[in-house]
Amino acid sequence: MSSGKSAISQIVDEQVVGMPRSVQDLDTPCLIVDEARMNRNIARLRARLASADVAFSPHLKTAKSIEVAKRLITGPHGPATVSTLREAEEFATCGITELTYAVGISPSKLPRVQALRLRGVKLSILLDSVEQAEAVAAASDSSDPVRVLIELDCDGHRSGVKPGDSDLLLAIARTLAPSAQLRGVLTHAGESYEARGEAELVAAAENERASAVRAAEFLRSRGFACPVVSIGSTPTAHFARSYQGVTEVRAGAFVFFDLVQVGIGVCTPDDIALSVLATVIGHQREKGWTIIDAGRMALSSDRGTAGQAVDHYYGVVCDTRGRPIEGLKVINCNQEHGIVAMRPAGAGRSPELPIGTRLRIFPNHVCATVAQFDRYHVIGEGRNEVSAEWPRFTGW
Amino acid sequence: MSSGKSAISQIVDEQVVGMPRSVQDLDTPCLIVDEARMNRNIARLRARLASADVAFSPHLKTAKSIEVAKRLITGPHGPATVSTLREAEEFATCGITELTYAVGISPSKLPRVQALRLRGVKLSILLDSVEQAEAVAAASDSSDPVRVLIELDCDGHRSGVKPGDSDLLLAIARTLAPSAQLRGVLTHAGESYEARGEAELVAAAENERASAVRAAEFLRSRGFACPVVSIGSTPTAHFARSYQGVTEVRAGAFVFFDLVQVGIGVCTPDDIALSVLATVIGHQREKGWTIIDAGRMALSSDRGTAGQAVDHYYGVVCDTRGRPIEGLKVINCNQEHGIVAMRPAGAGRSPELPIGTRLRIFPNHVCATVAQFDRYHVIGEGRNEVSAEWPRFTGW
Repeated sequence: MSSGKSAISQIVDEQVVGMPRSVQDLDTPCLIVDEARMNRNIARLRARLASADVAFSPHLKTAKSIEVAKRLITGPHGPATVSTLREAEEFATCGITELTYAVGISPSKLPRVQALRLRGVKLSILLDSVEQAEAVAAASDSSDPVRVLIELDCDGHRSGVKPGDSDLLLAIARTLAPSAQLRGVLTHAGESYEARGEAELVAAAENERASAVRAAEFLRSRGFACPVVSIGSTPTAHFARSYQGVTEVRAGAFVFFDLVQVGIGVCTPDDIALSVLATVIGHQREKGWTIIDAGRMALSSDRGTAGQAVDHYYGVVCDTRGRPIEGLKVINCNQEHGIVAMRPAGAGRSPELPIGTRLRIFPNHVCATVAQFDRYHVIGEGRNEVSAEWPRFTGW
Repeated sequence: MSSGKSAISQIVDEQVVGMPRSVQDLDTPCLIVDEARMNRNIARLRARLASADVAFSPHLKTAKSIEVAKRLITGPHGPATVSTLREAEEFATCGITELTYAVGISPSKLPRVQALRLRGVKLSILLDSVEQAEAVAAASDSSDPVRVLIELDCDGHRSGVKPGDSDLLLAIARTLAPSAQLRGVLTHAGESYEARGEAELVAAAENERASAVRAAEFLRSRGFACPVVSIGSTPTAHFARSYQGVTEVRAGAFVFFDLVQVGIGVCTPDDIALSVLATVIGHQREKGWTIIDAGRMALSSDRGTAGQAVDHYYGVVCDTRGRPIEGLKVINCNQEHGIVAMRPAGAGRSPELPIGTRLRIFPNHVCATVAQFDRYHVIGEGRNEVSAEWPRFTGW
């Protein structure tokens, strides 16, 4: 303890902080955020977008944390993107009020949309059909029109109007006017998660950009102002060569990164800012197994790296400072048990990890993993001390 | 409204209930519990075990709900089984105090174990090594000994002492004595989830029983009383032909059942008491896709039926009364989107499901799905009215 503080002021500090001071003291399993890495991930993408002079609308769906959101947004009130109305309601409480709800609207959710608007939230909603446009127009009033983006399907991934489907774009735009306000178009290059290598990622990003710009230009040619052209996914946001015609970029998982993003080539393991802290609770030594108290409930069932060049099973095992232990993976999970062993088979002997040993696990897909927890424990890079505890919320 | 009540008493009823009266009014996605089916599932297993004169220690890890727990336990205070100390802490608040924590103990969790014991919880903990036994013995006192079960590995599934490893059984028993109290042995036939057909299930159950009884008899032969012989998994609990020598049976997932259990042959789709309510938010009609607002966050990433004879992808699609729509599955998921289509390909045209249509989805693995939610909406079998809302908790 070389902090120079007196013993009493240290005790007071501990009481004020009110939390364990080391990852060795935390109840496991729990989430660890490496704040320095997170800040670096945020700074990297912000700098990239700032230099391209395009706005950043961070997707807050991953972290679902006000503390993380505050570090992501570029203005006092946003802009930002959400995947649930619950997120919009939570983030509005801390003044993040310039929001895009980037999942297609169902008419039954319009009362909650209106309640958010009455609270002063500048909420844009998303749709891709005349039926939805009719419901939104009926619920909207030209004196305070509901803001709408048309969703585009740039790569066949899921929802959205085909960017070249002029008839449908026009029909939606005409149905919305004049009671609702068509703000523009939005697309998400979800298929970029299947891209491998820089050339494919660059192509996915360019397709996303060109698709959105094409649809916006068509709508403008027919007299619809269409000021917003919104694109984004974590892979394409990091590989786009041009943002010409784009007004905002969305991305979410990049804040923490994960093993799937490593496999795509968007980051390296040294960028992964989120891990699950676990404790060794047993062994089956003749099989080379170490058993930990983090199973599917903690790590999630997501096996996103199974289809990639390097399969990390249920996660990469690290020491308490977040340094991967070469070859050691969580090879299988039950509800509250994780089985740790060397992979591929023949990669060598598993290190001896006595009962009580703390380990950190990098997840396949960070969105699925963090969703299992109600808080983040924050540490500095390569450190063991907990500096803060950030709540996170779940649900819809 | 043919209830015969006056308009005013109806309004009062609604205020007292304080919740939407129909599944059409619920925010989606959300959990639906069919209470009649759940009660039937509980009654079926309770009757089976009662007729075999063996105690039932229901596993409360699946539902994590006090309301469900009250319907599961056979005595005023239990017995019951938990998978986390958080469960033990929550259930103790409602008087369920005869508990087995059925995951191997780590020494760092012993302070929470002791706190529970000080609150009057009769908590048995689990271990399978001399190292753990030393830590427990050091924390225990013969005037109020910690209750311990030795975990057995009956089928190579994960943790536990090999039932025939007399040396290790004896070393653990001797390390625990006299400060801790060896209560007996516990095993879980996790490999029964891979069993197919009645003969394999019966064999898995008999192996589970025989393994546990063998270890208990050995310990008794060396002077350790070993009053508890605990076995159980949802598949083996329903297929055991004999409980000779067994004192209690554990099972959890059976309370709701799921598609994995249908695939194993433990139940039929008509027994599945848990579904996720979702809303149609779009279409890609040329692909036969209907898009719903329940994705991986709601359904979980679990694909437990992928390795079974019938793959149900991310779930079976039902109407609002819980009747499966022939051939309709959630074929893929993104974070908040589910893609619904006919499977196998060529199974016919997808029915027209307009935007706003409510659907219910049977999950692959109910434990993973319910973990995403903070409450259950309770309805009667084949009905739409919500009769209650039961909170559920998460975390460790």
